[in-house]
Amino acid sequence: MNRVVVFPIGVLMIALGVLLIMPAIMDIVSGSGDWQAFAISSIAAVSIGGLMLLSTFGWGFHLSRRDGYLLTIGCWLSLAIMAAVPFWVSDMHISFTDAVFESISGLTTTGSTVLTGLDTMPPGILLWRAMLQWIGGIGIIVMAVTLLPFLRVGGMQLYRMETSDQYDKFMPRLADICIRITIIYVALSILCAATYWELGMTGFEAIVHAMTTLSTGGFSTSDQSMGHFANPSIQWAAILFMLAGSLPFSVYIRFIHRFKFNVFLRDSQTSGFLLYTALAILGMTVFLAVNHPGGFLENLRQAAFNVVSVISTTGYASSDYLTWGAGAATLFFFLSMLGGCAGSTTGGLKAFRLFTMLKGSVRQGGKLMSPHCVQIIRMGDRQLSDDALSGVYLFFFVMMAVLGIITLGLTLTGLDFETSISAAVTAIANVGPGLGAIIGPAGNFEPLSDTAKWILDVAMLAGRLEFMTILVLFVPDFWNA
Amino acid sequence: MNRVVVFPIGVLMIALGVLLIMPAIMDIVSGSGDWQAFAISSIAAVSIGGLMLLSTFGWGFHLSRRDGYLLTIGCWLSLAIMAAVPFWVSDMHISFTDAVFESISGLTTTGSTVLTGLDTMPPGILLWRAMLQWIGGIGIIVMAVTLLPFLRVGGMQLYRMETSDQYDKFMPRLADICIRITIIYVALSILCAATYWELGMTGFEAIVHAMTTLSTGGFSTSDQSMGHFANPSIQWAAILFMLAGSLPFSVYIRFIHRFKFNVFLRDSQTSGFLLYTALAILGMTVFLAVNHPGGFLENLRQAAFNVVSVISTTGYASSDYLTWGAGAATLFFFLSMLGGCAGSTTGGLKAFRLFTMLKGSVRQGGKLMSPHCVQIIRMGDRQLSDDALSGVYLFFFVMMAVLGIITLGLTLTGLDFETSISAAVTAIANVGPGLGAIIGPAGNFEPLSDTAKWILDVAMLAGRLEFMTILVLFVPDFWNA
Repeated sequence: MNRVVVFPIGVLMIALGVLLIMPAIMDIVSGSGDWQAFAISSIAAVSIGGLMLLSTFGWGFHLSRRDGYLLTIGCWLSLAIMAAVPFWVSDMHISFTDAVFESISGLTTTGSTVLTGLDTMPPGILLWRAMLQWIGGIGIIVMAVTLLPFLRVGGMQLYRMETSDQYDKFMPRLADICIRITIIYVALSILCAATYWELGMTGFEAIVHAMTTLSTGGFSTSDQSMGHFANPSIQWAAILFMLAGSLPFSVYIRFIHRFKFNVFLRDSQTSGFLLYTALAILGMTVFLAVNHPGGFLENLRQAAFNVVSVISTTGYASSDYLTWGAGAATLFFFLSMLGGCAGSTTGGLKAFRLFTMLKGSVRQGGKLMSPHCVQIIRMGDRQLSDDALSGVYLFFFVMMAVLGIITLGLTLTGLDFETSISAAVTAIANVGPGLGAIIGPAGNFEPLSDTAKWILDVAMLAGRLEFMTILVLFVPDFWNA
Repeated sequence: MNRVVVFPIGVLMIALGVLLIMPAIMDIVSGSGDWQAFAISSIAAVSIGGLMLLSTFGWGFHLSRRDGYLLTIGCWLSLAIMAAVPFWVSDMHISFTDAVFESISGLTTTGSTVLTGLDTMPPGILLWRAMLQWIGGIGIIVMAVTLLPFLRVGGMQLYRMETSDQYDKFMPRLADICIRITIIYVALSILCAATYWELGMTGFEAIVHAMTTLSTGGFSTSDQSMGHFANPSIQWAAILFMLAGSLPFSVYIRFIHRFKFNVFLRDSQTSGFLLYTALAILGMTVFLAVNHPGGFLENLRQAAFNVVSVISTTGYASSDYLTWGAGAATLFFFLSMLGGCAGSTTGGLKAFRLFTMLKGSVRQGGKLMSPHCVQIIRMGDRQLSDDALSGVYLFFFVMMAVLGIITLGLTLTGLDFETSISAAVTAIANVGPGLGAIIGPAGNFEPLSDTAKWILDVAMLAGRLEFMTILVLFVPDFWNA
């Protein structure tokens, strides 16, 4: 590994060590012995990070493209493993495999968990899980704004034009954008926590859930997830803030700049995402009205909460929707692949890719009728290049191929077909719950075998890194350079 | 509907009426009363066809592109409905829905069936089912050679170059190619029937199974499918001829022209298809060796027969492979999506599309490392245009989108997730059996609701027509023209 990769990872390690002090304090205050787990982890992280910095002292810096990939993969991997240490050495006595699974599920904002008894768990562990998702959430937004368009991953060059050409006038640098995004992320999180608190959560619950709502992660302080709060207002608030986490954060910057709400509607990805979310909620409400007659408002809330939870790849549950019927389960299965907008904290395919492919299909249909007609695909006010279109199609193919391989791997560990394919989808799209009795919204990932958990670790990371690392690793040039 | 579309359909109707005489004779000879069903259908088909011809008498002919689509859809639809009549009016007393399902399943060479008690059924019905698959098989090859490359469906323009440029020298016209293909198809069918007969089938069984083997359809004369013949040699022969039906028939023409076996290996699609089939057989043999210890040759034959049956989209069963374990079932699920080579009788994605997308992925991976490097994708000795590459990616997206919609529709009829998604795959890829207790290799499609059967009818036709009709129907210009 090129040594230039070591330095930034060292910095992140030290930052992680500092962050680990917060759950330690939390546990000291609440009188839990687990504060020692966080203290040990903190010292370890700072020491390792410090050694990394020392070992690179005085070197010059030149980041090649290959180093860029190694750095990205290295950051996510090393953070995930370091962040697993407190789980491992805590009083919970879970295996290393489970600790890493929980850590990766947190950092990738997936939200699948191997832990039960959350309601009686020391607050430090609960806070640490939420912090991981919150860090992961801002991490993926920053990556989507700075790195992915530059690397042209899955058609993300579409958003390169936006940041590098058009907005150059009033946004001088990417660093500046990152700072603005972080401020917005923090502000929305505080707003969300305040709302939850106002609506009846304790201060701790409000902070934890705000962190896992905005990051569309989905970890909770209760085994019943959001179902624990039998409070419709809290669920409506969660719907609102999960949607807020699903929108492209660059649009928030534009909103603050111009202060007009039609900024959101004029962004084709945002308006399209809100449209298909509304359609899915409508469809599910009708489905509930037909199959489970009840109050309209109750049905609407149940439909909206669970649809938004899945489509935003958060993965909170308000009730076990698998009992609603196979139609509902299947709709949730497909919705969980979609995800929210590129440039948000969500996982999955992303709205702009869906629209790109739909528009590409209509164009191809037109070509079947008039072969020599040249049609241009537009996304909002920008023109989609053939290169970006191919990138999007390729992304979809690679996503499906990875889905197939992960599913096959999981069935070979002895899981049934439905559990395997839904576990693969929920991991790749960073959602959380799957289908079936084991890993459904009322279930838990703990019963899976160690092999299955490691396979899912790979799937969660691959999905979070938008599969680019998988592609790059198959290029012979990468290893020869 | 433009009247020019009516004439060729009329001709096909009369041809179908003539073909219906064969099962009628079969039933008269065997003393079954069902001969009347075929006689009535024959008279109806000839009458309708005759009326169609008369109504178009004396008109000029000009086939527009739109007419071409209407003609294609019209031919398959009207043949499917007309061919259903004998099932409907026969002594079996099945519903119109079941009759159409059986007919479409036959013509599209899918091979899913709603009938039980095949072993004691009058020979006319069994012959008619086999004839439908045999006609459908040659129909799809002719369509793939003449129509699809011209319409640039799903990257098939790749094969346009082959037939229109390179082979112009020694192949004067498409009609000539079609005649050659038909001769090869008939010759292989006779060879297959003779082999089956020599190995112990009755003459009738041999003819029926030869028709459904070469067409990779999969209808049988027994409820136990090929498992009825507890004869390893027959299964090896079936493996051979299912593979023969999975190869591009244009390569057979080249083989006859040059008479060198390396024609097959030099065709990138053929060699690639044989490679992934071999790998799948190997993997399944290892899986069987680990999970169900037995004789190596027995395991190899079971693996080879069922892998080839699924990958060639034939759908014969030699044993209920769902009892082999979830790993086997999942592998079969994904293999059934792949299919054989374009230009063969198989359904599914097709080998050349898989390779195109894999090569596209590797190229994109290379681009991530060296963004300005231009890499050309080759398929055999031909260069793949960006246009064809996009077409292939689009085909995959449309296939997956249709799969999702069909699955969702099926779950809304009350079927469970696993049955629904595997029924959708098996219908779209024209394979035959699905997963689960109802529609698995030991099951039958009869218990499904009428709505589910009509949904699957649409899926089978959409898959067989390579989804192009679906795309075209969404183009506003199509309806305005």
